[in-house]
Amino acid sequence: MSRFFSSKYSNLEAYVPGEQPKNMKYIKLNTNESPFPPSQGALEAARLEAGRLQLYSDPECTVLTEKAAEVFGVSKECVLMTNGSDEILNFAFMAFCDKEHPIVFPDITYGFYPVFAELNGIPYKEIPLKDDFSVDYKDYVSVNKNIVIANPNAPTGMALPLWQIEEIVKSNPDNVVIIDEAYVDFGGESAICLTEKYDNLLVTGTFSKSRSLAGARLGFGIGNKSLICDLNTIKYSTNPYNINRMTMAVGCAVLDDNEYYMNNCKTIIENREYTVKNLQAMGFYVLPSVANFVFAKHPEISGEELYLKLKERGILIRHFTKEKIKDFNRITIGTKDMMDEFLLNVSEIIKER
Amino acid sequence: MSRFFSSKYSNLEAYVPGEQPKNMKYIKLNTNESPFPPSQGALEAARLEAGRLQLYSDPECTVLTEKAAEVFGVSKECVLMTNGSDEILNFAFMAFCDKEHPIVFPDITYGFYPVFAELNGIPYKEIPLKDDFSVDYKDYVSVNKNIVIANPNAPTGMALPLWQIEEIVKSNPDNVVIIDEAYVDFGGESAICLTEKYDNLLVTGTFSKSRSLAGARLGFGIGNKSLICDLNTIKYSTNPYNINRMTMAVGCAVLDDNEYYMNNCKTIIENREYTVKNLQAMGFYVLPSVANFVFAKHPEISGEELYLKLKERGILIRHFTKEKIKDFNRITIGTKDMMDEFLLNVSEIIKER
Repeated sequence: MSRFFSSKYSNLEAYVPGEQPKNMKYIKLNTNESPFPPSQGALEAARLEAGRLQLYSDPECTVLTEKAAEVFGVSKECVLMTNGSDEILNFAFMAFCDKEHPIVFPDITYGFYPVFAELNGIPYKEIPLKDDFSVDYKDYVSVNKNIVIANPNAPTGMALPLWQIEEIVKSNPDNVVIIDEAYVDFGGESAICLTEKYDNLLVTGTFSKSRSLAGARLGFGIGNKSLICDLNTIKYSTNPYNINRMTMAVGCAVLDDNEYYMNNCKTIIENREYTVKNLQAMGFYVLPSVANFVFAKHPEISGEELYLKLKERGILIRHFTKEKIKDFNRITIGTKDMMDEFLLNVSEIIKER
Repeated sequence: MSRFFSSKYSNLEAYVPGEQPKNMKYIKLNTNESPFPPSQGALEAARLEAGRLQLYSDPECTVLTEKAAEVFGVSKECVLMTNGSDEILNFAFMAFCDKEHPIVFPDITYGFYPVFAELNGIPYKEIPLKDDFSVDYKDYVSVNKNIVIANPNAPTGMALPLWQIEEIVKSNPDNVVIIDEAYVDFGGESAICLTEKYDNLLVTGTFSKSRSLAGARLGFGIGNKSLICDLNTIKYSTNPYNINRMTMAVGCAVLDDNEYYMNNCKTIIENREYTVKNLQAMGFYVLPSVANFVFAKHPEISGEELYLKLKERGILIRHFTKEKIKDFNRITIGTKDMMDEFLLNVSEIIKER
């Protein structure tokens, strides 16, 4: 830290991303990426757009926003595209939370929420999950604070049904409810259909998981147009040209090829069920996931040991050190071949003991 | 504005980017883009990288940072790459300024500085330019506040010599001095060479102008490693994967082809001198620019009228409504053909009167 760093950040602990090995020697099951490459149309779009890089990208992101609005069934004034969904989440914390408008979220969830709160000087409260690691929606009904819930939640993979989300939104009419749907395409129910009815609901999403664009950085927010208007004020006051030309073009192509990506999701769901069954057969306790990852623990091997032993064998999974979940590991669902390799190594590690 | 928008932003007026026409019918001399496309190596890099978009980009931006450090002659710990230079500027306002650490900058400069200050609740003071539109460096010597100066300044194009920058940095040892060198490659003197000597100097730059990557969004900050460490804390608390894979790859290729871009700068400097001479011959008063644009006014035609008449004829230049500079227009320097077309139209507009 330099002697110039503002004291308002003295307690700030930055987010720690999952390991990103510089080479491709590992089987990467640690950051919930898609195992499937982008479609041919996306590659072609990137190639074409590179020839125009000397010109600024469209700050209004017009074409991509219109296409996204069409795919998600809302009007274009209700959509804001961002540089990954971390950006829309930070914008929402900035726009709607402050010292007088605190925020609540589960104690076990996306690790960035407390960082956004600290960064922006926002008081926050973490609400414990139930013993079965599910979110109890009743904890959020009429809580009269801003709320952010990842649905499906991470790293558990468990989701609330839409009617419970609606109860939360409806019972907190004077607060903004942010539903982070990064993983919704793998079996969750989206709340986008409620954004027209409730002016206090913001749904966020990402192209990083189901749409194979983690490396392109493309996220979005969908909500009432007055919420989107506020988020645009923040965008135009931080980084108006937040999305580069290539990502915009690739994003459009990906939406044009939506069926390819939604079919990939079906494959990942099948591979998840296959993985869960095999993990259970080896004695793992696996939370009921509707995401592109599973969260699992074994009675005989610690989360850390399994993580380290798999890493030695060239397989990366994600281990968290937080007390409540340190026995677990989060395992991204890849192709069938990747999961077979993972399962084989896990069974060998268990037998070795 | 929604009823949920935080009152801390009630006075926030977002930045207004220059017009970005959705089609290419205009000759664009309004946003200081390069008229030259990226080099072949950059196009090839984008194409190759698109096939790996399902994987997150490297949050440490290792390869690009190392290459940039080499080209700029500093160590890699002294460099932070960002999603355009607006991002590094906002990070610097966040990290080093607060209610107790206000910031000063010229009254006529990049219009984003007051927006960053408002956004982050930072008190700021605008110091008037001299009557000849130059920055008086003595206004900043021992001012004992944080400072941001665009050098060359925009929209004037005028620059301070390096020794005056050093006087400012040296005389404010307990404050951070940010030198925004977006336009330095067109004739200014860079202060990067001072960053090793002074721990309070942050130099920011962009690949948008001299390196033909406005649409790729790539900026950077160079300073003492403890300043860069603080800026990294902000980055990892807002958007760790701030740069996408394609931009990283293109940025590396652009640094490999550095000579091509520096040669383009020489051509733009020649075209600037040619444009200035011709504007002066038509009676324009032109500020002495060392940037890729000129700032000019004519005694007989208002800035707004010239801007509008050129727009009717398919040529975009940038007009600002601020009282002190409303007689001027900022004209980006393009290719010789573009400038001939511009000059021809200007002469016709003047004759028509």
